[in-house]
Amino acid sequence: MLVTVIVGSTSDRLVIDPAIDIFKKMGVDYELKVCSAHRDPDRLVEVIQSAEKTGCLVFIAAAGMAAHLAGAVSAHTTRPVIGIPVGSGPLKGQDSLLSTVMMPPGIPVATVGIDGGKNAAWLACQIIAIHPDHSGLRDKLLAERKSTRAKLLESENSWNDEIK
Amino acid sequence: MLVTVIVGSTSDRLVIDPAIDIFKKMGVDYELKVCSAHRDPDRLVEVIQSAEKTGCLVFIAAAGMAAHLAGAVSAHTTRPVIGIPVGSGPLKGQDSLLSTVMMPPGIPVATVGIDGGKNAAWLACQIIAIHPDHSGLRDKLLAERKSTRAKLLESENSWNDEIK
Amino acid sequence: MLVTVIVGSTSDRLVIDPAIDIFKKMGVDYELKVCSAHRDPDRLVEVIQSAEKTGCLVFIAAAGMAAHLAGAVSAHTTRPVIGIPVGSGPLKGQDSLLSTVMMPPGIPVATVGIDGGKNAAWLACQIIAIHPDHSGLRDKLLAERKSTRAKLLESENSWNDEIK
Amino acid sequence: MLVTVIVGSTSDRLVIDPAIDIFKKMGVDYELKVCSAHRDPDRLVEVIQSAEKTGCLVFIAAAGMAAHLAGAVSAHTTRPVIGIPVGSGPLKGQDSLLSTVMMPPGIPVATVGIDGGKNAAWLACQIIAIHPDHSGLRDKLLAERKSTRAKLLESENSWNDEIK
Amino acid sequence: MLVTVIVGSTSDRLVIDPAIDIFKKMGVDYELKVCSAHRDPDRLVEVIQSAEKTGCLVFIAAAGMAAHLAGAVSAHTTRPVIGIPVGSGPLKGQDSLLSTVMMPPGIPVATVGIDGGKNAAWLACQIIAIHPDHSGLRDKLLAERKSTRAKLLESENSWNDEIK
Amino acid sequence: MLVTVIVGSTSDRLVIDPAIDIFKKMGVDYELKVCSAHRDPDRLVEVIQSAEKTGCLVFIAAAGMAAHLAGAVSAHTTRPVIGIPVGSGPLKGQDSLLSTVMMPPGIPVATVGIDGGKNAAWLACQIIAIHPDHSGLRDKLLAERKSTRAKLLESENSWNDEIK
Amino acid sequence: MLVTVIVGSTSDRLVIDPAIDIFKKMGVDYELKVCSAHRDPDRLVEVIQSAEKTGCLVFIAAAGMAAHLAGAVSAHTTRPVIGIPVGSGPLKGQDSLLSTVMMPPGIPVATVGIDGGKNAAWLACQIIAIHPDHSGLRDKLLAERKSTRAKLLESENSWNDEIK
Amino acid sequence: MLVTVIVGSTSDRLVIDPAIDIFKKMGVDYELKVCSAHRDPDRLVEVIQSAEKTGCLVFIAAAGMAAHLAGAVSAHTTRPVIGIPVGSGPLKGQDSLLSTVMMPPGIPVATVGIDGGKNAAWLACQIIAIHPDHSGLRDKLLAERKSTRAKLLESENSWNDEIK
Repeated sequence: MLVTVIVGSTSDRLVIDPAIDIFKKMGVDYELKVCSAHRDPDRLVEVIQSAEKTGCLVFIAAAGMAAHLAGAVSAHTTRPVIGIPVGSGPLKGQDSLLSTVMMPPGIPVATVGIDGGKNAAWLACQIIAIHPDHSGLRDKLLAERKSTRAKLLESENSWNDEIK
Repeated sequence: MLVTVIVGSTSDRLVIDPAIDIFKKMGVDYELKVCSAHRDPDRLVEVIQSAEKTGCLVFIAAAGMAAHLAGAVSAHTTRPVIGIPVGSGPLKGQDSLLSTVMMPPGIPVATVGIDGGKNAAWLACQIIAIHPDHSGLRDKLLAERKSTRAKLLESENSWNDEIK
Repeated sequence: MLVTVIVGSTSDRLVIDPAIDIFKKMGVDYELKVCSAHRDPDRLVEVIQSAEKTGCLVFIAAAGMAAHLAGAVSAHTTRPVIGIPVGSGPLKGQDSLLSTVMMPPGIPVATVGIDGGKNAAWLACQIIAIHPDHSGLRDKLLAERKSTRAKLLESENSWNDEIK
Repeated sequence: MLVTVIVGSTSDRLVIDPAIDIFKKMGVDYELKVCSAHRDPDRLVEVIQSAEKTGCLVFIAAAGMAAHLAGAVSAHTTRPVIGIPVGSGPLKGQDSLLSTVMMPPGIPVATVGIDGGKNAAWLACQIIAIHPDHSGLRDKLLAERKSTRAKLLESENSWNDEIK
Repeated sequence: MLVTVIVGSTSDRLVIDPAIDIFKKMGVDYELKVCSAHRDPDRLVEVIQSAEKTGCLVFIAAAGMAAHLAGAVSAHTTRPVIGIPVGSGPLKGQDSLLSTVMMPPGIPVATVGIDGGKNAAWLACQIIAIHPDHSGLRDKLLAERKSTRAKLLESENSWNDEIK
Repeated sequence: MLVTVIVGSTSDRLVIDPAIDIFKKMGVDYELKVCSAHRDPDRLVEVIQSAEKTGCLVFIAAAGMAAHLAGAVSAHTTRPVIGIPVGSGPLKGQDSLLSTVMMPPGIPVATVGIDGGKNAAWLACQIIAIHPDHSGLRDKLLAERKSTRAKLLESENSWNDEIK
Repeated sequence: MLVTVIVGSTSDRLVIDPAIDIFKKMGVDYELKVCSAHRDPDRLVEVIQSAEKTGCLVFIAAAGMAAHLAGAVSAHTTRPVIGIPVGSGPLKGQDSLLSTVMMPPGIPVATVGIDGGKNAAWLACQIIAIHPDHSGLRDKLLAERKSTRAKLLESENSWNDEIK
Repeated sequence: MLVTVIVGSTSDRLVIDPAIDIFKKMGVDYELKVCSAHRDPDRLVEVIQSAEKTGCLVFIAAAGMAAHLAGAVSAHTTRPVIGIPVGSGPLKGQDSLLSTVMMPPGIPVATVGIDGGKNAAWLACQIIAIHPDHSGLRDKLLAERKSTRAKLLESENSWNDEIK
């Protein structure tokens, strides 16, 4: 398992599903845990320690509102931790963004945008590609960007055709 | 020890010192811990468990920026936890307020205002006064309010004298 | 009546109903008042004084927009007052959060998250459990947390089954 | 006394002193009270009732943070109430502005800008000028505006001279 | 015509219609103008001057986004101007609130809450009631508050009946 | 006069002086007016009409707080109007930015950043360079950018020397 | 082609279509490009250079969230660049507004309001009208404003008829 | 060179110097570039391409206000890019945080807190430690955390001694 994905509750699932799709497409092994920093702090420590032992290189943590999950993971590992602020609740992610990104010196969280499940997965792939055993990921990432550029061009043509 | 006060770093001390003064004045036993939810999460659990054993009725936790401390304490106890969002850092407490107050259902934090060290102490006294052994605190709290009212009246007179 | 719950208008009811359910489940006596700090300030004082006389240990006050209700209750009692900022109105609770939590020294409000009816109830139970006559509440609170942890684990298994 | 000015504490005085200067210049009788909605709610009611009896036409209330003062005054009178959100505290008036202006239907507060002591006074004069006995105020207000326009023109000339 | 109500566009009508209902109920003469400070600035000046001549005592101006309308009216009259920030547009009134309330010294706007059409009308009634010819309005305002209190009490009874 | 620069008060001067320096360096004729949309609305109209007659191609308007100046200028001309939100007042330009940029359809303001006096001048030069008589400005703008790039490179070398 | 309109993705199309309608009505030649500053930075440079060669006088760039598009265009041209912050994403344009408008000195972006496609087009017309070959645009702009004023007056009459 | 650090201007230096100190302490090779995404976009591309060729594993980019630098770097590489929002300018980093973190899918930026130079360096070390040649970094990171815990404990003792 190269990536351990942890969410605070299954209500954050809509944000994570697109990340899972990217890992499948890129051929990156992952595991999925539902574990709250607040509601099950003891199991969270076990999850992190067990993940490290089974080869986890990167953690991804997604949580909403007073989102402590990514920070709590970072407190228990020196592996890179990617935090996804979830835009749930009345403040639409203004709270989870600040709760995730404004970490004290020494315990970093690599924060992506609100509801940024996809970018969390892309960033995880970029980080894993640093390892020589997984350097093939870089070519896949480049191919993905090339394909995106082609799609943009195509959408430009369709639009121009339409408004003529 | 009726109250356990925990701060994430001594840079939050300016907010806590006025709370200590109130506990001294009200005759409430307290202990003071410097323990970060992020930088020493294991010791935090020990501090909480040890406090519960020695009679702690209320916790107070103060932290700035992505302030997880109060939430982390609440995750490990069913005693009431008072959270003080500290207004340190570039966002002046907008981050710590949201990180402290927007807790998920089941793990409440009794949040006071940004840098609200004094109100954390007053609230702790109000909570402790519920216990029959400490009901004398209520009279002290009422006396304190009476004295505040007298001071307001006095300041009104001084001001009116001055601008005449 | 251990808890007096006050709302500014019945439009805040959706936030309070889940709190009522918790009090019923935990076996905590409560009373329910609809009384606005702005529209019926005189009755509010009567409600508070009468509640204190009949044994109220904790107040809960819920209001939206320029939410003064919890502060107004706190001004008239030395019992702990829990404030729920309601996310009604165009600003979705950014106004009620600040109006509830930023209290001046001496008149604290134990503020929970926006629309945090459940956490207000949990916090009230934690506070009441300080009283020796109600210390049984602590075991119920611990049992509740244990049950939540089991549910999290179950949701993890379902999700993993589904995405296999 | 045509205007009753109430502040929650003398720390709000810097905002009020320029208002007093305007009342002196315009010849408008005023009285000055230091009375907090939270710390002395009973006296606040007395102050309002006594002011109404002695001819007060307009109230001005200034407070910072969770600024309930103007709303509390409005709850006890049908005279117009002008609210000044004071920019004290860590949030620089973002809290007091929302706490003052977002009032529920039926209890209006005529809110001026953060730290807007001067405009509170000008608005009070405009309101009082509606009364036939004080219609002379309108000419004074017009004269004041004329004088402001002359000063602007003068400052334009000085600046242009300087940068030539 | 005691009140001149000006809106920047008919899209702001939903906010104004409840104000009109209050004026009808209170027996206050009003006129209604659709005139934008930006799109028809010259007519705006004519509307204000004509209103002053025909006895207008109070202006009400409602606008959204960069809401300049109330300020523009205030620039051309010394009558009190009530500003209603309309919560239209992507920022839901955070822009119109600040554009309406943060006026420079000398040109006040009596600002009510976002979409606060009702309170604009109540405030206008309170201001007009200062004039001896319209002092009967005060009794109507007091009666209105009494009726509101009765409704609150009624809603409390219904709710309690329901959750028993 | 190719550019007419209008400020609401001389307190906004610090933001404008760097713009003046750029016009002098680029050889662009300008005039400077101190005229408030709120305090002298009639003269503002005269200033705009007179500027148009004497060849003004672009207006620049700078104001703080509820900044209506740029919008008011735009309402009276079809020449491009550049708005500078000034970061004065307790909200540090959050109010003036929204008051300047969120204009209704039909009356645009070309808004630059808070306190963006320099960029207002650069943008004015870019706009004027569209006119064939002033196309030489484009070469000056390109030369300016080249010089900036050289300075960046130089600062990189100094820093690297220093930390070696 | 007088105007080159660039969007980061076709999801921003709803904001641009009304701008296209204005260019058609005003008889202004435009071209439409779908090109992201992040996903196809190399083609963006080509698009800009090619546009300059074929006579483009003004660029319009629309993007949401961390909206870098307008700034990236401005970095590669000295023609005026109009930026439209798109209100997509969880923060409804608060992010794109700041990302577009707060540019460093030397690289200005003429920013219009969130989702301000129409005003981007009007501003582009105003800028193009500076060129003597296109001065006829000014009369069209004036005619447009006149027609808007007539519509406002008409809507006032309809509303008054309706509420009589 | 394992890390390439890029800042938009030397005014961001105060944020970067503590990061450099960490790289020196941890024995991580770095290079330092001053290169603005807006003022020298062409050189930025060269800097990135040259860094990749000489073994750069991680980029760090720091910029203030409409901070496009980290996003622009990410657009040109598939190596992980760490973004530091700098708290310069009137909005104190609220603008640079959103401009850095809210990236579109496919072009991630690993964002740290406002002015988070230290955490950018710690995160870079964590990422580099994934490479087998640099796995020794993990022990150094663990040692660093141990030392931090000791310092916290020491500060607790000093404080308690002092307030006794």
